[in-house]
Amino acid sequence: MANPNTLVYTPGDPAGIGPDLAVVLADQPMTDRIVIIADLNILTDRAIQLHRNVAFDAYDADRLDGSAIEVLHLQCDHPVTAGQGDPGYADYILSTLNRAVDGCLSGEFDALVTGPVNKEMMNRSGTDFMGHTEYLADRTGADCPVMLLMSENLKVALVTTHIPISQVPDQITCERIVSIGRILHNDLEKWFGLKSPRIGICGLNPHAGEGGKLGHEEIAEIIPAIEILHQENIDATGPVPADTIFAGRQVDEFDVVLAMYHDQGLPVIKHGAFGSIVNVTLGLPIIRTSVDHGTAYGIAGKGVADTGSLQHALSLAGTLSHKQMK
Amino acid sequence: MANPNTLVYTPGDPAGIGPDLAVVLADQPMTDRIVIIADLNILTDRAIQLHRNVAFDAYDADRLDGSAIEVLHLQCDHPVTAGQGDPGYADYILSTLNRAVDGCLSGEFDALVTGPVNKEMMNRSGTDFMGHTEYLADRTGADCPVMLLMSENLKVALVTTHIPISQVPDQITCERIVSIGRILHNDLEKWFGLKSPRIGICGLNPHAGEGGKLGHEEIAEIIPAIEILHQENIDATGPVPADTIFAGRQVDEFDVVLAMYHDQGLPVIKHGAFGSIVNVTLGLPIIRTSVDHGTAYGIAGKGVADTGSLQHALSLAGTLSHKQMK
Repeated sequence: MANPNTLVYTPGDPAGIGPDLAVVLADQPMTDRIVIIADLNILTDRAIQLHRNVAFDAYDADRLDGSAIEVLHLQCDHPVTAGQGDPGYADYILSTLNRAVDGCLSGEFDALVTGPVNKEMMNRSGTDFMGHTEYLADRTGADCPVMLLMSENLKVALVTTHIPISQVPDQITCERIVSIGRILHNDLEKWFGLKSPRIGICGLNPHAGEGGKLGHEEIAEIIPAIEILHQENIDATGPVPADTIFAGRQVDEFDVVLAMYHDQGLPVIKHGAFGSIVNVTLGLPIIRTSVDHGTAYGIAGKGVADTGSLQHALSLAGTLSHKQMK
Repeated sequence: MANPNTLVYTPGDPAGIGPDLAVVLADQPMTDRIVIIADLNILTDRAIQLHRNVAFDAYDADRLDGSAIEVLHLQCDHPVTAGQGDPGYADYILSTLNRAVDGCLSGEFDALVTGPVNKEMMNRSGTDFMGHTEYLADRTGADCPVMLLMSENLKVALVTTHIPISQVPDQITCERIVSIGRILHNDLEKWFGLKSPRIGICGLNPHAGEGGKLGHEEIAEIIPAIEILHQENIDATGPVPADTIFAGRQVDEFDVVLAMYHDQGLPVIKHGAFGSIVNVTLGLPIIRTSVDHGTAYGIAGKGVADTGSLQHALSLAGTLSHKQMK
């Protein structure tokens, strides 16, 4: 049997439910080898708090079997209390991410799965952290990361992510839509086995601008981008009004919907499938998936956090790693 | 038995499926009396095209029973072909709407149900028509119409409707949110029997601005509006990120979700319940409901248009009329 994939999990905010999920995970059978990058003391403290008797092996880079969860220990210098967010965790959180990315780039790990962080806390620490997607792109030198959320029945990608709505129109450029269209075309084919994936592209404005009456960006940027994608034999359709493309089962006409901004696409997929959504970043030189929930401070350390989304994220990371190895 | 309600239906664009729906409706049993304002020749031509043998009575203002569909005839001077949109229909469409509104204001009719129009065609005719909601507000002198879409499980209201996304941030004012909050509070109590309805208010920006990091409108406008609503004992909560408020069953915590703009709210409700959604306008001096679909030129005259949404719209208009009469 070939070596299993090695997936690396960063639990994110140590005061959130990321460590809870790591503890619960340690009790469950795994298909792939999982390395958690975290302070071992935080994990063992959380296990005690959750009344769970779990064993974490120390990370051994030369290990070949995947029978236990391993912990790559990085020390957190700030005292941690479950449920109490603190800007003081920021350096530790970034150190776990950086170590994970370095390992993915070097081939030490096959894929990265990230737990939740609280961006407000990160920013209060003085770090300019817009989100995992942006941070990982910066760290890996990728110029066009693409945020993709997927449920069992729906894939939604975004042209813009974590910016004020007032800045969205200026970011909707022909060049950017073409770049993302190419990444969707290539990565969905490479990783998901979708031959010539059907890409449905939303308008920016209500009713996709209604022929220019409700905004000009469709005519100036989106339609020209779709024409360029067509010239490259990429199966792109649009601009389609967002409340048409997602309506009922019409969305099945596409393998992926490209929404122009965060709140045009994410509320739809989270409404339909919350708890079973995986966040994947395309356009990076590494494989990265993520849970679809936040730090959930209110339930950290209480034994009620649901590992469903993390399980989906690990499972997808494993599947994508296997495809990459072929 | 009291007189039935008199509901008035305007089929909208004569080349769309609005007349098809009127023809199908004429074959079905009705709880309320229904008056269709349309050119009788368009309806009879469409009935022939659909191979339906239906009888339309002429409208009689003094009639007391509700046993048949009545047609209040207004002539359309432009020749009509099913499926072929034309700016030349605009005057006729507006004349049907105006007659319906006059009748609702005078008490001749109890509620208005509107069929679909094509806004691009309306505007090509030189009419400045932003949508039924805006037109009816203007015609009835209402200064703050509120667009509400409802399915069996979800109600979504909008702060802004048919404007370019670039103009949305300037329209999100404390004053407007307070006005809409009051209308939701009063109208949901008056018409839907919801005592002190729970209003969930979305943020404008991703993650509701994340404490000012992703936009300032939450701090400058939305939070102050919610504080004013609280002072008036209105049950308003927010600003909540749109992808949190709609996630899974969390939305059940609210009787209505107030989205800041068209594509933040409508794709969600249409994804979950397309075909059974009713559009209601609150804040008008008349009751008005609408279908949730467009003109669907492609299937006009072909006998496949589904009356589901119109049935829901008529049923709701009837229910609201009865409540109003109490």
